[in-house]
Amino acid sequence: MIDKVVAYLESQSEPNVQRLCDLLRIRSISTESECKPDVRRGAEWVLQLLSGCGIEGQIIDTPGHPCVFADTGPASGNGPTVLIYGHYDVQPTGDVKLWDSPPFDPTVRDGILYARGAADDKGQVLTHLLAAEAWMKAVGKLPIRMKFLIEGEEEISSPNLGKIIRDHRDRLACDYVALSDTPKFDATTPAITYGTKGLVYKEIVLTGPKHNLHSGSYGGTLTNPGNALAVIVASLRDTENRVTIPGFYDDVRDLSPEERERMQALPFDEQTYLKSMGAPALTGEKGRTTLERRWARPTLDVNGLFGGFTDEGASTVIPAKVMAKVSMRIVPDQHPDRIAAAFDDAVRRACPEGVRLQIINHGACAAYVAPLDSAGMTAASQALEAGFGKKPYFIREGGTLPILPMFKEVLGAESIMMGFCVPDCNAHGPNEFLAVSDFHNGARSAAYFPHYLASAR
Amino acid sequence: MIDKVVAYLESQSEPNVQRLCDLLRIRSISTESECKPDVRRGAEWVLQLLSGCGIEGQIIDTPGHPCVFADTGPASGNGPTVLIYGHYDVQPTGDVKLWDSPPFDPTVRDGILYARGAADDKGQVLTHLLAAEAWMKAVGKLPIRMKFLIEGEEEISSPNLGKIIRDHRDRLACDYVALSDTPKFDATTPAITYGTKGLVYKEIVLTGPKHNLHSGSYGGTLTNPGNALAVIVASLRDTENRVTIPGFYDDVRDLSPEERERMQALPFDEQTYLKSMGAPALTGEKGRTTLERRWARPTLDVNGLFGGFTDEGASTVIPAKVMAKVSMRIVPDQHPDRIAAAFDDAVRRACPEGVRLQIINHGACAAYVAPLDSAGMTAASQALEAGFGKKPYFIREGGTLPILPMFKEVLGAESIMMGFCVPDCNAHGPNEFLAVSDFHNGARSAAYFPHYLASAR
Repeated sequence: MIDKVVAYLESQSEPNVQRLCDLLRIRSISTESECKPDVRRGAEWVLQLLSGCGIEGQIIDTPGHPCVFADTGPASGNGPTVLIYGHYDVQPTGDVKLWDSPPFDPTVRDGILYARGAADDKGQVLTHLLAAEAWMKAVGKLPIRMKFLIEGEEEISSPNLGKIIRDHRDRLACDYVALSDTPKFDATTPAITYGTKGLVYKEIVLTGPKHNLHSGSYGGTLTNPGNALAVIVASLRDTENRVTIPGFYDDVRDLSPEERERMQALPFDEQTYLKSMGAPALTGEKGRTTLERRWARPTLDVNGLFGGFTDEGASTVIPAKVMAKVSMRIVPDQHPDRIAAAFDDAVRRACPEGVRLQIINHGACAAYVAPLDSAGMTAASQALEAGFGKKPYFIREGGTLPILPMFKEVLGAESIMMGFCVPDCNAHGPNEFLAVSDFHNGARSAAYFPHYLASAR
Repeated sequence: MIDKVVAYLESQSEPNVQRLCDLLRIRSISTESECKPDVRRGAEWVLQLLSGCGIEGQIIDTPGHPCVFADTGPASGNGPTVLIYGHYDVQPTGDVKLWDSPPFDPTVRDGILYARGAADDKGQVLTHLLAAEAWMKAVGKLPIRMKFLIEGEEEISSPNLGKIIRDHRDRLACDYVALSDTPKFDATTPAITYGTKGLVYKEIVLTGPKHNLHSGSYGGTLTNPGNALAVIVASLRDTENRVTIPGFYDDVRDLSPEERERMQALPFDEQTYLKSMGAPALTGEKGRTTLERRWARPTLDVNGLFGGFTDEGASTVIPAKVMAKVSMRIVPDQHPDRIAAAFDDAVRRACPEGVRLQIINHGACAAYVAPLDSAGMTAASQALEAGFGKKPYFIREGGTLPILPMFKEVLGAESIMMGFCVPDCNAHGPNEFLAVSDFHNGARSAAYFPHYLASAR
């Protein structure tokens, strides 16, 4: 049966790329309120694909953006049930001038497809939808029961998905959650990501005078919100790049000796990695390796700064209002609420007198680590080897998938993350891309995954 | 003669307000390169007014924006020669949404004229032009020789005016420079400003990765330019609001006991001042009074911050590039070049590893303090009393007029600053304004000034 499915996918490779381009043209930017109708179009597009091949589904509305749920129904064998999770929403484009081709006008150059969402996550989630379609078209059914939960709020930390999972826990019941929203290890080696960091995202807003003031006429007599913001942000880390928030490291779970050993055995090339970033040097928390800092150590980063006069040239104002967006990536077993509260306390304590402080919450979620010895992990590894012709590495990830700890908590299911895109795919930056070959190999792996799972028990 | 002149001004009060509105409609923003043609229109407007009443003038071109020069020619008496200096360029508008009426559509509400440049400096410089015109129209000549130098680059620190003054030092020769680009003491009391601070304006630009990176996938392995910027900016001042740049205070001239006494005698109301700013509290360098900090102590202020994701919501990027515009107001006898170099050194030392640092210079100039016992100061005091019906206070100013130390150095002339607008006129902010009554009283004072000077010796 699997041969028929793979042959069908092969026969559809051109149209499937075109269908990915169709999906990528939808401006489903979940962070921008004016894109709300576009985000809904994304949901409708996904639902249509699944219904079109006979997998029944529906749109689940939320106070924010909608979610698509679909279910193949019970399978004939006694294999496990898998819930495919992914998201059709995307990050903002950032400065469009930095893109070589328009972010919502997908363009293939030298076998690479460039567009916002090409890798994160439209291109990757689509492989699973197209694999299921191939099973339905080539064989008439899937070898295991598969469910699909494709959401539109991943890039805003999934504020409504927790409620959906709790409300629909029976319909969503599954043995494994499978998703592709993480990268390969490198250009030629697929990867299974078994851990992600959590996230606590804050915005510090300081206001001082009622409007921008002349820095000559008023300077020296009031607290400049810009200077105060620098003081606060600078206070949050020390010169060894450790976070200074009291209690921040209290619950951090250190790597086990086995995990540290496996990490050190990976053929990770620091210079290639550095070059992929284009930064002047690798830096970070003292006494930790680059991979450990990436995957297993908490961080605190400025994501945005704004205030006062920011145009060309010079204007001598004291800004009335400034802001810094600051987020922390957290690791097992840091608790997002405790970290959030500790951050707020530290910021309040560091805030100089003479400004009004507001702290805006932009979401918080926990880290996740999956066990490596399950039947699901074994099947996923086999599927990736079949799809890409090479055994995958088991890796962790600094990024955040808020949904993973929720699935574990509510459904009791562990998550399996199969990565199809390259690590430096510019997710969240300009010129995001996915190699067309990775798209096809990913779809093939996604087709093999239920095949191996069906025969696993 | 002066009575005729004052009567003429009275008869022209309505048309003169309309002429001010004409000038205010010109978008002569010198900091914005796309406004270059508008800035030139400003120069042409000024020249036309002077030529129109028989004062011969010309436009002096520069590599930047043009300057207007005019000269009444020798007067019959042996009074001193006065050079009227002012500027027709204006600050950028900032966020136009914060204005109650469009910044370049002058609007009178309750006797107050709102527009960008109403006070700084179109409205104030125009009083001198209209006073000269009144002398010409009512009497046929001025009682002393007057020259006019009205520039278009004041808001960008007058980069070309030094050369103009040196190149034309003979034509510009004068006993006093008179200008109105400073405020009154309060709503009802005019002021003569006898000292201004200097300015050193810098922009710190930090670049890290080649483009914005996903803060999860890359966080913890490179220096975040946003965090580094906060560290640098925070390092420049201590918790007592003193600047930490080594040597910064070495050349600061302390107030003399007489000056300190005069300052303390001024009816300065701290609560009114605080309310005018709308800030939560008066703060600043420890151990100094509010007026001393405003007028006689150097400052260091953030004027603008930018980097990373600054839109609505949350995006988890590590910014590729961030910037802080930072300026210092300096006092006698701090040397702008020495302060600029010390700033650069301090910033370089404070810069964390792993980012590329660039420091952009946006101009530097010295502070200025005039003697109070000259014939010119006496005449100006008499003129203000005649125009406003109240003796002026002698005050200093935290703002910067780069031209003053240049006039002193090249022409040997001391400057006399007569202030006609209120202190909280929103210069550089939204809703900049000038009271129509201050405009008329200012023009009358400007007409009395040559009258008293002519009889001074």
